[in-house]
Amino acid sequence: MGASFLSDNAAGVSPEILEAIVRANDGAAPAYGADVLTQLLTGRFEEFFGHPVQCYLVGTGTAANALSLAALCPPWGAVLCHEEAHIAVDECGAPELFTGGAKLLPLPGRDGKLSIDGLQRALARFRGGDQHQVQPAAVSLSQATEAGTVYRPDEIAALAEWAHARGLKVHMDGARFANAAVGIGASPAEITWRAGVDILSFGATKNGALAAEAVIVFDAGIGKEMLFRRKRAGHLFSKSRFLAAQFHAYLDGDLWRRNAAHANGMARKLAEGLGRISGVAVLHPVEANEIFVRMPDALAAFLRQHEFLLHDWPPSGADGRRLVTSPMTTEAEVDGLLAAAADAP
Amino acid sequence: MGASFLSDNAAGVSPEILEAIVRANDGAAPAYGADVLTQLLTGRFEEFFGHPVQCYLVGTGTAANALSLAALCPPWGAVLCHEEAHIAVDECGAPELFTGGAKLLPLPGRDGKLSIDGLQRALARFRGGDQHQVQPAAVSLSQATEAGTVYRPDEIAALAEWAHARGLKVHMDGARFANAAVGIGASPAEITWRAGVDILSFGATKNGALAAEAVIVFDAGIGKEMLFRRKRAGHLFSKSRFLAAQFHAYLDGDLWRRNAAHANGMARKLAEGLGRISGVAVLHPVEANEIFVRMPDALAAFLRQHEFLLHDWPPSGADGRRLVTSPMTTEAEVDGLLAAAADAP
Amino acid sequence: MGASFLSDNAAGVSPEILEAIVRANDGAAPAYGADVLTQLLTGRFEEFFGHPVQCYLVGTGTAANALSLAALCPPWGAVLCHEEAHIAVDECGAPELFTGGAKLLPLPGRDGKLSIDGLQRALARFRGGDQHQVQPAAVSLSQATEAGTVYRPDEIAALAEWAHARGLKVHMDGARFANAAVGIGASPAEITWRAGVDILSFGATKNGALAAEAVIVFDAGIGKEMLFRRKRAGHLFSKSRFLAAQFHAYLDGDLWRRNAAHANGMARKLAEGLGRISGVAVLHPVEANEIFVRMPDALAAFLRQHEFLLHDWPPSGADGRRLVTSPMTTEAEVDGLLAAAADAP
Amino acid sequence: MGASFLSDNAAGVSPEILEAIVRANDGAAPAYGADVLTQLLTGRFEEFFGHPVQCYLVGTGTAANALSLAALCPPWGAVLCHEEAHIAVDECGAPELFTGGAKLLPLPGRDGKLSIDGLQRALARFRGGDQHQVQPAAVSLSQATEAGTVYRPDEIAALAEWAHARGLKVHMDGARFANAAVGIGASPAEITWRAGVDILSFGATKNGALAAEAVIVFDAGIGKEMLFRRKRAGHLFSKSRFLAAQFHAYLDGDLWRRNAAHANGMARKLAEGLGRISGVAVLHPVEANEIFVRMPDALAAFLRQHEFLLHDWPPSGADGRRLVTSPMTTEAEVDGLLAAAADAP
Repeated sequence: MGASFLSDNAAGVSPEILEAIVRANDGAAPAYGADVLTQLLTGRFEEFFGHPVQCYLVGTGTAANALSLAALCPPWGAVLCHEEAHIAVDECGAPELFTGGAKLLPLPGRDGKLSIDGLQRALARFRGGDQHQVQPAAVSLSQATEAGTVYRPDEIAALAEWAHARGLKVHMDGARFANAAVGIGASPAEITWRAGVDILSFGATKNGALAAEAVIVFDAGIGKEMLFRRKRAGHLFSKSRFLAAQFHAYLDGDLWRRNAAHANGMARKLAEGLGRISGVAVLHPVEANEIFVRMPDALAAFLRQHEFLLHDWPPSGADGRRLVTSPMTTEAEVDGLLAAAADAP
Repeated sequence: MGASFLSDNAAGVSPEILEAIVRANDGAAPAYGADVLTQLLTGRFEEFFGHPVQCYLVGTGTAANALSLAALCPPWGAVLCHEEAHIAVDECGAPELFTGGAKLLPLPGRDGKLSIDGLQRALARFRGGDQHQVQPAAVSLSQATEAGTVYRPDEIAALAEWAHARGLKVHMDGARFANAAVGIGASPAEITWRAGVDILSFGATKNGALAAEAVIVFDAGIGKEMLFRRKRAGHLFSKSRFLAAQFHAYLDGDLWRRNAAHANGMARKLAEGLGRISGVAVLHPVEANEIFVRMPDALAAFLRQHEFLLHDWPPSGADGRRLVTSPMTTEAEVDGLLAAAADAP
Repeated sequence: MGASFLSDNAAGVSPEILEAIVRANDGAAPAYGADVLTQLLTGRFEEFFGHPVQCYLVGTGTAANALSLAALCPPWGAVLCHEEAHIAVDECGAPELFTGGAKLLPLPGRDGKLSIDGLQRALARFRGGDQHQVQPAAVSLSQATEAGTVYRPDEIAALAEWAHARGLKVHMDGARFANAAVGIGASPAEITWRAGVDILSFGATKNGALAAEAVIVFDAGIGKEMLFRRKRAGHLFSKSRFLAAQFHAYLDGDLWRRNAAHANGMARKLAEGLGRISGVAVLHPVEANEIFVRMPDALAAFLRQHEFLLHDWPPSGADGRRLVTSPMTTEAEVDGLLAAAADAP
Repeated sequence: MGASFLSDNAAGVSPEILEAIVRANDGAAPAYGADVLTQLLTGRFEEFFGHPVQCYLVGTGTAANALSLAALCPPWGAVLCHEEAHIAVDECGAPELFTGGAKLLPLPGRDGKLSIDGLQRALARFRGGDQHQVQPAAVSLSQATEAGTVYRPDEIAALAEWAHARGLKVHMDGARFANAAVGIGASPAEITWRAGVDILSFGATKNGALAAEAVIVFDAGIGKEMLFRRKRAGHLFSKSRFLAAQFHAYLDGDLWRRNAAHANGMARKLAEGLGRISGVAVLHPVEANEIFVRMPDALAAFLRQHEFLLHDWPPSGADGRRLVTSPMTTEAEVDGLLAAAADAP
């Protein structure tokens, strides 16, 4: 028994996506994105978002984020983000490498979210246009957040309006974009360009793909230089059709939505169950597929003995833990963990 | 009818490799390389090369090359390479980005190969240790070369000895490593560490993989900092097992060798046939799976009308063309092209 | 009447230093540091510090700091520093450029000083050796601090011991090094290598030089690559003798000490006087030549009307002000300001 | 006896410039370029060039060049320059650092000059807009050239027209700008903006200044971001007035012209004399203040024994030598060298 709640990255690949990869292996196809599958993808994303886009496929979320930020922020710029943002704490300086040395400004904020107040305080520390200082150039939001919560369309719109009014662009790290959209019942448009997002890291890997991430550019002011940024970072895949195939399958029949709905449902169920276990406290609203709890060491150890894998999560405190569900999480696995927890001495 | 001889990148994926990917999709597995398949890979590569190695999986050859060079060459260093080397002309400055601004020094050389003479002349332009100049730090060899030829073990050993005697390290761009090894009947060891190669970009993508490249470190002096270099370049894959699975299949039952032997054989056959076509001249010894010819415009156009795809190749002159075979190239495709060429008016 | 208390950068050059520049203009001299004045400087610094050093002259403090940090911190590293440190807030990302994209981690701390507690808390957020995160590599101290206070030898030693025990190196931003040393009556050795400092930005510009800063390397493990770092950053001066001449004059007859003693004395006098003005609060111990106060807007405006120049200083609060004295500040200027302040309505 | 013909960098400072530095040391002045001398300089340069300009003072020619190129060329760009250009062979990769990793493309060319043919051939190797390749973005001319020759206005105009027609910008490395202008009797306007130069490194250091270089921006499309580029490279001087004072003195009473005319005259005289020495061959037209000759080893050694200093210059062949005159070179020194050469056994 047992089950892994370590990460949606630890989960496997949806059968529909694996099948699409196998199907794409049909004869020769022009390399480096000139194949039909890649070429058709921009149109599909435009339909998906209801807006003209540029679309750049890459293999990792870190690449998508760092390329996006490089498009928005000059080397002497700064990016305002939450202090727990993946770009700030888990990408080993990739944004700094890709931007040519820009600064990230990590800000506190409840439930993993940036607030206008927080941004305002951060900006107040800068003397605008002063040559001695880096120049704030972008705001980056994680959707879903690193606390497992989801920005509402009006929250994004308010942040984006604030940013745009000050000449800052808006990036969204959508590593768990589908989980976020599904989590609040919002359309892809509502939580992106319609709310003011300029560029999106659109992730599929954590939601059932093998390795498929896309930079989606909504801002018409961002030019084709992303082609060069991607190539010189080593992120242009020769057999691009196999990345594109994953996204086609992801959009076909709303697989993205079904996968996310399942993972989110499992997370809710798990959170509700954990909330009833004595000594366990759920720390943030569970709006996507991540659950953050305080859980005594003894219980965590007991679960691990029974092969239920979960991460310690120091940002949530000394007894903080993180559990993540995925499209592959089964109801039996959730029930199994809850039963084990209930049995713990 | 017709067939693509555009690139081995345009070819699909070997069934064995696709099957391995499908097989790897078995339940959850720790992310970011902590999975069993990735963990076992170092041992398999050590067996393959007969030498202790570090192994870093990435998704593209550009990433493997640029990371390798960054490990060998400081920002104020220089890399000596052939003037047609992929790193110099087809990677959009990736080595410059990853090294932090090092210089490539492109050198001429017959049949795509560097010579001691050429290196000597290049080095003579540098005042060693002079603070005004970048410091030559590495030599990069392409194996097979960009001219479709293959360095012999003793050629590599001579270049490496020259380099090491001057404090330079040796990188090998092995995007077509299998084709090279098979092309001259050399073992992996003979054309790498035994001949003095310090670090190798070991490519499988052009020889039947979906997207699988590895940086293989032979030099014990290169530390674990490659972990950080890879991550901050966005090249650490979360579902690493699917990259590792490709390599396991690639090594299993010598698939690498069988694939390369087939592609090379098709190339030889194609080259021999083309050499008999009036007006066509084969430009370099065909030792791997690339063929460079001079071919009149009329013939090239005629072939394309019949859906035989090939690249114009200006480095080979105004009527230069490149044809590449792959593990998927069939004898019928080769015969078809030759028949069409024979029929051309 | 009136006087500038804007910055020690706004002050002019000590006559002794100007004369040395004029004297150095004697015939031809080898360029780029091969001249006698530059060559003799290492020996003089070794005597000054009582320790073997490498010495690299540059023209600005930003260059000295950014080069020093680049020598200590890899591109995937992080530098722990005070949140008001010049490197963090006033150098427009120079450390990020020179290091190739390392991160600065700004930490709070009383009176401009880092504390072991603060460092400990910062480090606790990092998972050591984890490839997903930048790796803390250095601690940077400002001496004197940005609050006008001075680290004692034992404070530095404790911080350095903490750092070294964790594999971190120690940089000191000594833009106001002389003011600091004089301010606490410490010898140059006591507050540098003897306390564990590995590399020092030794500034003379703010203490009477025209433009003279030196990177002083105490750590024998740091090699000659600084030569290349400096040159490729454009900081190798062709007529190096004129930078060296400034330092010779600075060390001759302890000009550095006399200048700093004067500036510090003026600062103390000014601070004592301001402390007696109603509505004015001195914010930090005045141990060097900077004074931070809270001062009502009306008083600041009144002083400015009378041509006493001072900076608003938002980090010290809404009515924060900074006043800086220099070797050129006269007692009459200090008295004048205090008299004006006393006269203010 | 004897004299240094090593470099105009080895020469001292013109008295007028030293006096201006001393004069500028008058009380306090706002730092970082807000002082009157710096503020007035833009107007003076506009008068000097007869064109609106932006002006950024820096301390070294390498800084001026690398900042200029960074303004013209993105990280994925390329700069076409002569293979002996200072930016290519003597700046230790500074352009690569400041541009964020762009490539220099060194081209051959007679007498140190680029030709349309050479540029054309270089550009032909690039597939325009192809994501696999860096994108040619700028042409850099050295004026005077590294061969001591001078581009005529119509030569510059032809190169610039060629460049602009292909979307490339034009940089001029004017480390010896005054020598060039005087050498061909051209006005500053004629060999810069009027001929199509977009940005100029305007050097005074080699022509009698202590350390004074300026980036002069003619292209109105280049914005104020140069402020940030300069600061984060550590090239914003706090006591900017002392850089500005040098340029004021340099322009006052046409000191720039008088100094250059003297140095050029000495070079001509020296070249004429050397040309009459048996075994010596002058290699390029001597149009500025540099002389390149072939000179037997024995003669060079003899001259050095008599303390006439000159550089071996391998780019000019095995017995190549370079001699440089400066504003401080005296007729007696030239006569002395020629007499010694005539006396040589």
